[in-house]
Amino acid sequence: MFYLIGLGIYGWKGLSVEGLNACKNADSMFIETYTNIIQKEYIIDLEKTINKKIRELSRDDVETKSEELFIDKSKKSDVCLLVGGDPLTATTHIELLRLCKEKGIKFKVVHAASIYNSVCETGLHVYKFGKSCSIPFPEPHYNPTSFFDIIEQNQKIEAHTIVFLDIKKDQDKYMTISEGLNILLNISKEKKSFFNDNTKVIGIARLGSPDQVIRYGSVKELLNFDFGKNPHILIVPKMGKIEEEYAKELYS
Amino acid sequence: MFYLIGLGIYGWKGLSVEGLNACKNADSMFIETYTNIIQKEYIIDLEKTINKKIRELSRDDVETKSEELFIDKSKKSDVCLLVGGDPLTATTHIELLRLCKEKGIKFKVVHAASIYNSVCETGLHVYKFGKSCSIPFPEPHYNPTSFFDIIEQNQKIEAHTIVFLDIKKDQDKYMTISEGLNILLNISKEKKSFFNDNTKVIGIARLGSPDQVIRYGSVKELLNFDFGKNPHILIVPKMGKIEEEYAKELYS
Repeated sequence: MFYLIGLGIYGWKGLSVEGLNACKNADSMFIETYTNIIQKEYIIDLEKTINKKIRELSRDDVETKSEELFIDKSKKSDVCLLVGGDPLTATTHIELLRLCKEKGIKFKVVHAASIYNSVCETGLHVYKFGKSCSIPFPEPHYNPTSFFDIIEQNQKIEAHTIVFLDIKKDQDKYMTISEGLNILLNISKEKKSFFNDNTKVIGIARLGSPDQVIRYGSVKELLNFDFGKNPHILIVPKMGKIEEEYAKELYS
Repeated sequence: MFYLIGLGIYGWKGLSVEGLNACKNADSMFIETYTNIIQKEYIIDLEKTINKKIRELSRDDVETKSEELFIDKSKKSDVCLLVGGDPLTATTHIELLRLCKEKGIKFKVVHAASIYNSVCETGLHVYKFGKSCSIPFPEPHYNPTSFFDIIEQNQKIEAHTIVFLDIKKDQDKYMTISEGLNILLNISKEKKSFFNDNTKVIGIARLGSPDQVIRYGSVKELLNFDFGKNPHILIVPKMGKIEEEYAKELYS
Protein backbone atom coordinates (compact mmCIF):
# COMPACT_ATOMS: atom_id res chain seq x y z
CA MET A 1 0.00 0.00 0.00
CA PHE A 2 1.20 3.49 -0.87
CA TYR A 3 0.49 6.26 1.63
CA LEU A 4 0.80 9.87 0.54
CA ILE A 5 0.85 11.78 3.81
CA GLY A 6 0.69 15.49 4.60
CA LEU A 7 2.80 17.00 7.39
CA GLY A 8 0.71 20.13 7.87
CA ILE A 9 1.88 23.71 7.82
CA TYR A 10 4.72 23.73 10.35
CA GLY A 11 7.39 21.27 11.56
CA TRP A 12 6.05 17.70 11.55
CA LYS A 13 3.45 17.81 14.33
CA GLY A 14 0.75 18.87 11.89
CA LEU A 15 0.88 15.20 10.86
CA SER A 16 -2.45 13.57 11.71
CA VAL A 17 -2.86 10.66 14.11
CA GLU A 18 -3.85 8.53 11.11
CA GLY A 19 -0.66 9.62 9.33
CA LEU A 20 1.52 8.92 12.37
CA ASN A 21 0.02 5.42 12.70
CA ALA A 22 0.76 4.74 9.02
CA CYS A 23 4.38 5.87 9.56
CA LYS A 24 4.77 3.64 12.61
CA ASN A 25 3.52 0.63 10.62
CA ALA A 26 5.39 1.41 7.40
CA ASP A 27 8.08 -0.80 5.89
CA SER A 28 9.81 2.17 4.28
CA MET A 29 9.62 5.92 4.70
CA PHE A 30 10.39 8.74 2.29
CA ILE A 31 10.06 12.51 2.46
CA GLU A 32 10.25 15.16 -0.24
CA THR A 33 11.43 18.59 0.82
CA TYR A 34 11.26 20.55 -2.41
CA THR A 35 7.57 21.54 -2.69
CA ASN A 36 7.62 22.67 0.96
CA ILE A 37 10.69 23.43 3.01
CA ILE A 38 11.10 21.09 5.97
CA GLN A 39 14.02 21.66 8.30
CA LYS A 40 16.44 18.76 8.87
CA GLU A 41 15.85 18.92 12.63
CA TYR A 42 12.15 18.07 12.20
CA ILE A 43 12.96 15.05 10.08
CA ILE A 44 15.40 13.79 12.73
CA ASP A 45 12.82 14.37 15.46
CA LEU A 46 10.15 12.47 13.50
CA GLU A 47 12.61 9.61 12.85
CA LYS A 48 13.08 9.29 16.61
CA THR A 49 9.31 9.32 17.18
CA ILE A 50 8.54 6.56 14.68
CA ASN A 51 11.82 4.77 15.31
CA LYS A 52 12.85 4.36 11.68
CA LYS A 53 14.92 6.09 9.02
CA ILE A 54 13.32 8.48 6.53
CA ARG A 55 14.98 8.84 3.13
CA GLU A 56 14.97 12.35 1.67
CA LEU A 57 14.02 12.61 -2.01
CA SER A 58 14.87 15.29 -4.56
CA ARG A 59 12.51 16.65 -7.21
CA ASP A 60 14.18 14.38 -9.76
CA ASP A 61 13.69 11.33 -7.49
CA VAL A 62 9.95 12.00 -7.21
CA GLU A 63 9.29 13.14 -10.75
CA THR A 64 11.37 10.69 -12.78
CA LYS A 65 12.45 7.82 -10.50
CA SER A 66 9.33 7.28 -8.40
CA GLU A 67 8.62 3.77 -9.74
CA GLU A 68 11.99 2.22 -8.95
CA LEU A 69 12.46 4.18 -5.72
CA PHE A 70 9.11 3.73 -3.96
CA ILE A 71 5.99 3.05 -6.07
CA ASP A 72 6.93 -0.50 -7.08
CA LYS A 73 7.88 -1.28 -3.46
CA SER A 74 4.29 -0.40 -2.47
CA LYS A 75 3.03 -3.49 -4.25
CA LYS A 76 4.29 -5.85 -1.56
CA SER A 77 4.97 -3.58 1.41
CA ASP A 78 3.69 -0.43 3.09
CA VAL A 79 5.45 2.68 1.83
CA CYS A 80 4.88 6.24 3.09
CA LEU A 81 5.84 9.40 1.27
CA LEU A 82 5.68 12.51 3.47
CA VAL A 83 4.99 15.93 1.97
CA GLY A 84 4.74 19.32 3.68
CA GLY A 85 1.25 20.86 3.97
CA ASP A 86 -1.48 18.80 2.36
CA PRO A 87 0.15 16.20 0.10
CA LEU A 88 -1.89 17.12 -2.99
CA THR A 89 -1.68 20.89 -2.99
CA ALA A 90 1.62 20.08 -4.71
CA THR A 91 -0.24 19.43 -7.94
CA THR A 92 2.39 17.15 -9.49
CA HIS A 93 1.87 14.50 -6.82
CA ILE A 94 -1.44 13.36 -8.32
CA GLU A 95 0.78 11.56 -10.87
CA LEU A 96 1.87 9.19 -8.07
CA LEU A 97 -1.76 8.15 -7.53
CA ARG A 98 -2.21 7.65 -11.26
CA LEU A 99 0.86 5.40 -11.35
CA CYS A 100 -0.53 3.33 -8.46
CA LYS A 101 -3.87 2.96 -10.21
CA GLU A 102 -2.16 1.90 -13.45
CA LYS A 103 -0.13 -0.73 -11.60
CA GLY A 104 -3.01 -1.96 -9.44
CA ILE A 105 -1.36 -0.74 -6.23
CA LYS A 106 -3.63 0.35 -3.39
CA PHE A 107 -3.11 3.91 -2.21
CA LYS A 108 -4.38 6.18 0.52
CA VAL A 109 -4.03 9.95 0.83
CA VAL A 110 -3.74 11.21 4.40
CA HIS A 111 -4.65 14.87 4.31
CA ALA A 112 -3.35 17.61 6.60
CA ALA A 113 -3.72 21.35 7.00
CA SER A 114 -2.39 23.50 4.17
CA ILE A 115 -2.10 27.22 3.73
CA TYR A 116 -5.35 27.06 1.71
CA ASN A 117 -7.50 26.33 4.75
CA SER A 118 -5.25 27.78 7.47
CA VAL A 119 -5.55 31.31 6.04
CA CYS A 120 -8.98 31.57 7.65
CA GLU A 121 -7.10 32.36 10.87
CA THR A 122 -6.99 35.88 9.42
CA GLY A 123 -10.74 36.22 10.00
CA LEU A 124 -11.48 36.13 6.28
CA HIS A 125 -14.23 33.74 5.23
CA VAL A 126 -12.82 30.69 3.50
CA TYR A 127 -15.66 30.42 0.97
CA LYS A 128 -14.81 33.89 -0.33
CA PHE A 129 -11.27 33.07 -1.47
CA GLY A 130 -10.85 33.07 -5.24
CA LYS A 131 -8.03 31.67 -7.35
CA SER A 132 -4.60 32.17 -5.83
CA CYS A 133 -1.47 33.45 -7.53
CA SER A 134 2.31 33.64 -7.12
CA ILE A 135 4.75 36.51 -7.58
CA PRO A 136 8.06 35.32 -9.02
CA PHE A 137 11.33 37.18 -8.49
CA PRO A 138 11.72 39.55 -11.46
CA GLU A 139 14.60 38.63 -13.76
CA PRO A 140 16.33 40.62 -16.52
CA HIS A 141 14.11 39.32 -19.33
CA TYR A 142 11.25 37.90 -17.30
CA ASN A 143 8.71 40.27 -15.79
CA PRO A 144 5.31 38.57 -15.82
CA THR A 145 2.24 40.39 -14.53
CA SER A 146 -0.40 37.65 -14.93
CA PHE A 147 -0.64 37.26 -11.13
CA PHE A 148 -1.90 40.83 -10.99
CA ASP A 149 -4.74 39.95 -13.40
CA ILE A 150 -5.90 37.22 -11.01
CA ILE A 151 -6.02 39.70 -8.12
CA GLU A 152 -8.03 42.14 -10.28
CA GLN A 153 -10.47 39.41 -11.38
CA ASN A 154 -11.01 38.36 -7.77
CA GLN A 155 -11.59 41.95 -6.66
CA LYS A 156 -14.30 42.30 -9.30
CA ILE A 157 -16.20 39.26 -8.01
CA GLU A 158 -15.68 40.14 -4.32
CA ALA A 159 -13.11 37.39 -3.74
CA HIS A 160 -9.93 37.37 -1.64
CA THR A 161 -6.58 36.42 -3.19
CA ILE A 162 -3.79 34.44 -1.56
CA VAL A 163 -0.56 35.76 -3.05
CA PHE A 164 2.35 33.35 -2.75
CA LEU A 165 5.80 34.93 -2.69
CA ASP A 166 8.67 33.33 -4.59
CA ILE A 167 11.04 30.90 -2.93
CA LYS A 168 14.36 30.05 -4.52
CA LYS A 169 15.55 27.44 -2.09
CA ASP A 170 18.76 26.63 -3.99
CA GLN A 171 19.80 30.31 -3.79
CA ASP A 172 18.39 30.72 -0.25
CA LYS A 173 16.23 33.59 -1.58
CA TYR A 174 12.78 34.16 -0.10
CA MET A 175 10.59 37.04 -1.25
CA THR A 176 9.42 39.19 1.66
CA ILE A 177 6.02 40.79 2.06
CA SER A 178 7.66 44.20 1.45
CA GLU A 179 9.18 43.04 -1.82
CA GLY A 180 5.87 41.54 -2.94
CA LEU A 181 3.98 44.74 -2.10
CA ASN A 182 6.47 46.86 -4.05
CA ILE A 183 6.09 44.65 -7.12
CA LEU A 184 2.27 44.95 -6.91
CA LEU A 185 2.49 48.74 -6.43
CA ASN A 186 4.64 49.13 -9.53
CA ILE A 187 2.36 47.04 -11.73
CA SER A 188 -0.73 48.82 -10.43
CA LYS A 189 0.79 52.24 -11.12
CA GLU A 190 1.62 51.21 -14.67
CA LYS A 191 -1.84 49.70 -15.25
CA LYS A 192 -3.61 52.52 -13.39
CA SER A 193 -5.29 49.85 -11.28
CA PHE A 194 -6.89 49.87 -7.80
CA PHE A 195 -3.85 48.83 -5.75
CA ASN A 196 -2.09 51.69 -3.94
CA ASP A 197 -0.50 52.82 -0.66
CA ASN A 198 -3.85 52.89 1.12
CA THR A 199 -5.12 49.47 0.00
CA LYS A 200 -5.72 47.21 3.00
CA VAL A 201 -3.80 43.93 2.94
CA ILE A 202 -2.87 41.10 5.29
CA GLY A 203 0.67 39.81 5.73
CA ILE A 204 1.35 36.39 7.23
CA ALA A 205 4.69 34.97 8.35
CA ARG A 206 5.45 31.43 9.57
CA LEU A 207 1.80 30.42 9.92
CA GLY A 208 1.31 27.60 12.40
CA SER A 209 4.66 28.12 14.15
CA PRO A 210 4.95 29.35 17.75
CA ASP A 211 6.09 32.76 16.49
CA GLN A 212 3.63 33.21 13.63
CA VAL A 213 2.75 36.78 12.68
CA ILE A 214 -0.49 37.96 11.09
CA ARG A 215 -0.78 41.67 10.42
CA TYR A 216 -3.59 43.68 8.87
CA GLY A 217 -3.04 47.20 7.62
CA SER A 218 -2.58 49.49 4.64
CA VAL A 219 0.14 48.74 2.11
CA LYS A 220 2.03 51.76 3.45
CA GLU A 221 1.94 50.39 6.99
CA LEU A 222 2.91 46.83 6.05
CA LEU A 223 5.76 47.91 3.75
CA ASN A 224 7.72 48.96 6.83
CA PHE A 225 6.55 46.28 9.22
CA ASP A 226 9.13 43.67 10.25
CA PHE A 227 7.58 40.22 9.75
CA GLY A 228 10.80 38.40 10.62
CA LYS A 229 11.96 35.15 9.02
CA ASN A 230 10.44 33.45 5.97
CA PRO A 231 8.13 32.05 4.74
CA HIS A 232 5.94 35.09 4.06
CA ILE A 233 2.54 35.13 2.37
CA LEU A 234 0.36 38.03 1.37
CA ILE A 235 -3.39 38.32 1.11
CA VAL A 236 -5.16 40.92 -0.99
CA PRO A 237 -8.63 40.77 0.49
CA LYS A 238 -11.97 42.06 -0.69
CA MET A 239 -13.47 42.30 2.75
CA GLY A 240 -17.01 42.53 3.94
CA LYS A 241 -17.72 44.64 7.02
CA ILE A 242 -17.59 41.77 9.50
CA GLU A 243 -14.34 40.39 8.10
CA GLU A 244 -12.78 43.84 8.29
CA GLU A 245 -13.81 44.29 11.93
CA TYR A 246 -12.23 40.98 12.93
CA ALA A 247 -9.03 41.57 10.98
CA LYS A 248 -8.73 45.03 12.56
CA GLU A 249 -9.45 43.92 16.10
CA LEU A 250 -7.26 40.83 16.01
CA TYR A 251 -4.33 41.85 13.84
CA SER A 252 -3.74 45.61 13.68
CA MET B 1 -4.67 29.02 27.30
CA PHE B 2 -7.47 28.40 24.80
CA TYR B 3 -6.85 25.83 22.07
CA LEU B 4 -9.14 25.77 19.04
CA ILE B 5 -8.38 22.42 17.43
CA GLY B 6 -9.43 20.88 14.11
CA LEU B 7 -10.33 17.19 13.86
CA GLY B 8 -9.81 16.90 10.11
CA ILE B 9 -12.23 15.56 7.56
CA TYR B 10 -13.19 12.16 8.95
CA GLY B 11 -13.62 10.60 12.42
CA TRP B 12 -11.10 12.02 14.89
CA LYS B 13 -7.79 10.67 13.54
CA GLY B 14 -7.36 13.68 11.29
CA LEU B 15 -6.42 15.42 14.55
CA SER B 16 -2.76 16.46 14.37
CA VAL B 17 -0.07 15.25 16.73
CA GLU B 18 0.13 18.82 18.08
CA GLY B 19 -3.64 18.76 18.67
CA LEU B 20 -3.53 15.36 20.35
CA ASN B 21 -0.76 16.57 22.69
CA ALA B 22 -2.83 19.64 23.61
CA CYS B 23 -5.82 17.39 24.39
CA LYS B 24 -3.70 15.10 26.56
CA ASN B 25 -2.45 18.08 28.58
CA ALA B 26 -5.78 19.92 28.75
CA ASP B 27 -7.66 20.66 31.97
CA SER B 28 -11.00 20.61 30.19
CA MET B 29 -12.24 19.41 26.83
CA PHE B 30 -15.17 20.50 24.70
CA ILE B 31 -16.40 19.56 21.25
CA GLU B 32 -18.97 21.20 19.00
CA THR B 33 -20.80 18.93 16.57
CA TYR B 34 -23.07 21.35 14.73
CA THR B 35 -20.79 22.89 12.08
CA ASN B 36 -19.55 19.41 11.17
CA ILE B 37 -21.21 16.15 12.01
CA ILE B 38 -19.10 13.96 14.28
CA GLN B 39 -20.43 10.56 15.24
CA LYS B 40 -20.79 9.78 18.96
CA GLU B 41 -18.60 6.68 18.60
CA TYR B 42 -15.61 8.81 17.52
CA ILE B 43 -16.00 11.07 20.53
CA ILE B 44 -16.05 8.04 22.85
CA ASP B 45 -12.99 6.59 21.13
CA LEU B 46 -11.11 9.89 21.47
CA GLU B 47 -12.10 10.12 25.16
CA LYS B 48 -10.49 6.73 25.71
CA THR B 49 -7.35 7.79 23.86
CA ILE B 50 -6.82 10.98 25.86
CA ASN B 51 -8.27 9.50 29.02
CA LYS B 52 -10.66 12.34 29.84
CA LYS B 53 -14.27 13.37 29.30
CA ILE B 54 -15.24 15.63 26.41
CA ARG B 55 -18.32 17.81 26.84
CA GLU B 56 -20.49 18.23 23.75
CA LEU B 57 -21.67 21.78 23.02
CA SER B 58 -24.69 22.99 21.06
CA ARG B 59 -24.74 25.97 18.70
CA ASP B 60 -26.30 28.05 21.45
CA ASP B 61 -23.55 27.02 23.92
CA VAL B 62 -20.82 28.18 21.51
CA GLU B 63 -22.52 31.28 20.16
CA THR B 64 -24.07 32.78 23.29
CA LYS B 65 -22.59 31.05 26.35
CA SER B 66 -18.95 30.66 25.34
CA GLU B 67 -17.60 32.98 28.04
CA GLU B 68 -19.15 31.25 31.02
CA LEU B 69 -18.75 27.75 29.58
CA PHE B 70 -15.15 27.72 28.39
CA ILE B 71 -13.49 31.04 27.44
CA ASP B 72 -13.21 32.40 31.00
CA LYS B 73 -11.85 29.04 32.18
CA SER B 74 -8.99 29.45 29.67
CA LYS B 75 -7.59 32.30 31.75
CA LYS B 76 -6.25 30.01 34.45
CA SER B 77 -6.29 26.57 32.84
CA ASP B 78 -5.81 24.86 29.48
CA VAL B 79 -9.07 24.46 27.60
CA CYS B 80 -9.50 22.71 24.23
CA LEU B 81 -12.45 23.13 21.90
CA LEU B 82 -12.56 20.51 19.13
CA VAL B 83 -14.20 21.28 15.80
CA GLY B 84 -14.60 19.05 12.72
CA GLY B 85 -12.44 19.89 9.68
CA ASP B 86 -10.27 22.95 10.13
CA PRO B 87 -11.50 24.88 13.18
CA LEU B 88 -11.82 28.19 11.35
CA THR B 89 -13.58 27.18 8.15
CA ALA B 90 -16.62 27.51 10.44
CA THR B 91 -16.51 31.27 10.07
CA THR B 92 -18.30 32.09 13.31
CA HIS B 93 -15.48 30.62 15.41
CA ILE B 94 -13.20 33.61 14.79
CA GLU B 95 -15.38 35.34 17.42
CA LEU B 96 -13.86 33.01 20.04
CA LEU B 97 -10.37 34.32 19.19
CA ARG B 98 -11.65 37.89 19.38
CA LEU B 99 -13.10 37.23 22.83
CA CYS B 100 -9.77 35.81 23.99
CA LYS B 101 -7.90 38.83 22.68
CA GLU B 102 -10.34 41.21 24.41
CA LYS B 103 -9.90 39.38 27.71
CA GLY B 104 -6.12 38.99 27.42
CA ILE B 105 -6.34 35.21 27.19
CA LYS B 106 -3.66 33.40 25.18
CA PHE B 107 -4.97 31.27 22.33
CA LYS B 108 -3.62 28.86 19.75
CA VAL B 109 -5.33 27.53 16.63
CA VAL B 110 -4.34 23.98 15.71
CA HIS B 111 -5.22 23.53 12.06
CA ALA B 112 -6.25 20.32 10.32
CA ALA B 113 -7.35 19.21 6.88
CA SER B 114 -10.63 20.59 5.63
CA ILE B 115 -12.64 19.94 2.50
CA TYR B 116 -11.06 23.11 1.04
CA ASN B 117 -7.64 21.53 0.67
CA SER B 118 -8.65 17.86 0.53
CA VAL B 119 -10.59 18.36 -2.72
CA CYS B 120 -7.30 18.33 -4.59
CA GLU B 121 -7.50 14.53 -4.33
CA THR B 122 -9.77 14.90 -7.39
CA GLY B 123 -6.75 15.89 -9.47
CA LEU B 124 -7.96 19.47 -9.80
CA HIS B 125 -5.36 22.11 -9.07
CA VAL B 126 -6.00 23.80 -5.73
CA TYR B 127 -4.93 27.27 -6.89
CA LYS B 128 -7.67 27.19 -9.54
CA PHE B 129 -10.59 26.90 -7.12
CA GLY B 130 -12.75 30.02 -6.97
CA LYS B 131 -15.35 31.02 -4.38
CA SER B 132 -17.44 28.13 -3.14
CA CYS B 133 -21.22 28.01 -2.78
CA SER B 134 -23.98 26.01 -1.08
CA ILE B 135 -27.28 24.67 -2.41
CA PRO B 136 -30.01 24.85 0.22
CA PHE B 137 -33.06 22.55 0.19
CA PRO B 138 -35.78 24.40 -1.74
CA GLU B 139 -38.73 25.43 0.42
CA PRO B 140 -42.24 26.64 -0.53
CA HIS B 141 -41.35 30.34 -0.49
CA TYR B 142 -37.58 30.11 -0.60
CA ASN B 143 -35.89 29.26 -3.88
CA PRO B 144 -32.59 31.12 -4.04
CA THR B 145 -30.35 30.84 -7.11
CA SER B 146 -27.39 32.97 -6.01
CA PHE B 147 -25.19 29.86 -5.73
CA PHE B 148 -25.64 29.39 -9.47
CA ASP B 149 -24.28 32.89 -10.10
CA ILE B 150 -21.08 31.96 -8.25
CA ILE B 151 -20.62 28.89 -10.44
CA GLU B 152 -21.16 31.01 -13.57
CA GLN B 153 -18.69 33.66 -12.39
CA ASN B 154 -16.09 31.00 -11.70
CA GLN B 155 -16.60 29.40 -15.10
CA LYS B 156 -15.96 32.76 -16.76
CA ILE B 157 -12.59 33.17 -15.01
CA GLU B 158 -11.58 29.51 -15.47
CA ALA B 159 -12.10 28.60 -11.83
CA HIS B 160 -13.51 25.44 -10.23
CA THR B 161 -16.42 25.63 -7.79
CA ILE B 162 -16.94 23.51 -4.69
CA VAL B 163 -20.70 23.15 -4.30
CA PHE B 164 -21.78 22.24 -0.76
CA LEU B 165 -25.05 20.36 -0.46
CA ASP B 166 -27.51 21.21 2.30
CA ILE B 167 -27.50 19.35 5.61
CA LYS B 168 -30.46 19.57 7.93
CA LYS B 169 -29.08 17.57 10.83
CA ASP B 170 -32.13 18.08 13.08
CA GLN B 171 -34.37 16.58 10.38
CA ASP B 172 -31.76 13.98 9.38
CA LYS B 173 -31.94 15.33 5.80
CA TYR B 174 -28.82 15.35 3.64
CA MET B 175 -28.91 16.56 0.05
CA THR B 176 -27.50 13.99 -2.37
CA ILE B 177 -25.37 14.68 -5.44
CA SER B 178 -28.35 13.68 -7.61
CA GLU B 179 -30.63 16.20 -5.90
CA GLY B 180 -28.01 18.93 -6.21
CA LEU B 181 -27.48 18.19 -9.91
CA ASN B 182 -31.22 18.34 -10.58
CA ILE B 183 -31.49 21.73 -8.87
CA LEU B 184 -28.60 23.07 -10.98
CA LEU B 185 -30.14 21.62 -14.18
CA ASN B 186 -33.46 23.34 -13.51
CA ILE B 187 -31.90 26.73 -12.82
CA SER B 188 -29.65 26.45 -15.86
CA LYS B 189 -32.57 25.57 -18.12
CA GLU B 190 -34.50 28.59 -16.87
CA LYS B 191 -31.51 30.91 -17.24
CA LYS B 192 -30.42 29.32 -20.53
CA SER B 193 -26.99 28.85 -18.99
CA PHE B 194 -24.08 26.49 -19.74
CA PHE B 195 -24.97 23.66 -17.34
CA ASN B 196 -26.63 20.65 -18.97
CA ASP B 197 -26.74 16.84 -19.14
CA ASN B 198 -23.34 16.67 -20.79
CA THR B 199 -21.48 19.01 -18.45
CA LYS B 200 -18.60 17.20 -16.73
CA VAL B 201 -18.73 17.26 -12.93
CA ILE B 202 -17.11 15.50 -9.97
CA GLY B 203 -19.07 13.96 -7.13
CA ILE B 204 -17.43 13.20 -3.78
CA ALA B 205 -18.84 11.17 -0.91
CA ARG B 206 -17.37 10.64 2.56
CA LEU B 207 -13.97 12.13 1.68
CA GLY B 208 -11.21 10.85 3.97
CA SER B 209 -13.14 7.80 5.15
CA PRO B 210 -12.12 4.22 4.26
CA ASP B 211 -15.05 4.01 1.81
CA GLN B 212 -14.74 7.43 0.17
CA VAL B 213 -16.02 7.73 -3.38
CA ILE B 214 -14.80 10.22 -6.00
CA ARG B 215 -16.46 10.00 -9.40
CA TYR B 216 -15.90 12.03 -12.55
CA GLY B 217 -18.42 12.04 -15.37
CA SER B 218 -21.18 13.88 -17.19
CA VAL B 219 -24.18 15.15 -15.23
CA LYS B 220 -26.24 12.45 -16.93
CA GLU B 221 -23.87 9.71 -15.72
CA LEU B 222 -23.58 11.01 -12.16
CA LEU B 223 -27.34 11.56 -11.75
CA ASN B 224 -27.79 7.80 -11.66
CA PHE B 225 -24.59 6.84 -9.86
CA ASP B 226 -24.98 5.51 -6.33
CA PHE B 227 -22.60 7.44 -4.06
CA GLY B 228 -23.88 5.77 -0.90
CA LYS B 229 -24.20 7.48 2.48
CA ASN B 230 -23.77 11.21 3.20
CA PRO B 231 -22.03 13.59 3.27
CA HIS B 232 -21.93 14.36 -0.45
CA ILE B 233 -20.17 17.23 -2.16
CA LEU B 234 -20.20 18.32 -5.75
CA ILE B 235 -17.57 20.05 -7.84
CA VAL B 236 -18.34 21.99 -10.99
CA PRO B 237 -14.89 22.19 -12.52
CA LYS B 238 -13.44 24.30 -15.30
CA MET B 239 -10.73 21.87 -16.22
CA GLY B 240 -7.53 22.25 -18.12
CA LYS B 241 -6.38 19.35 -20.27
CA ILE B 242 -4.05 17.82 -17.65
CA GLU B 243 -6.67 18.03 -14.89
CA GLU B 244 -9.21 16.36 -17.15
CA GLU B 245 -6.85 13.49 -17.99
CA TYR B 246 -6.18 12.76 -14.32
CA ALA B 247 -9.84 12.98 -13.32
CA LYS B 248 -10.75 10.63 -16.17
CA GLU B 249 -8.02 8.12 -15.50
CA LEU B 250 -8.44 8.04 -11.74
CA TYR B 251 -12.16 8.45 -11.23
CA SER B 252 -14.27 7.44 -14.24
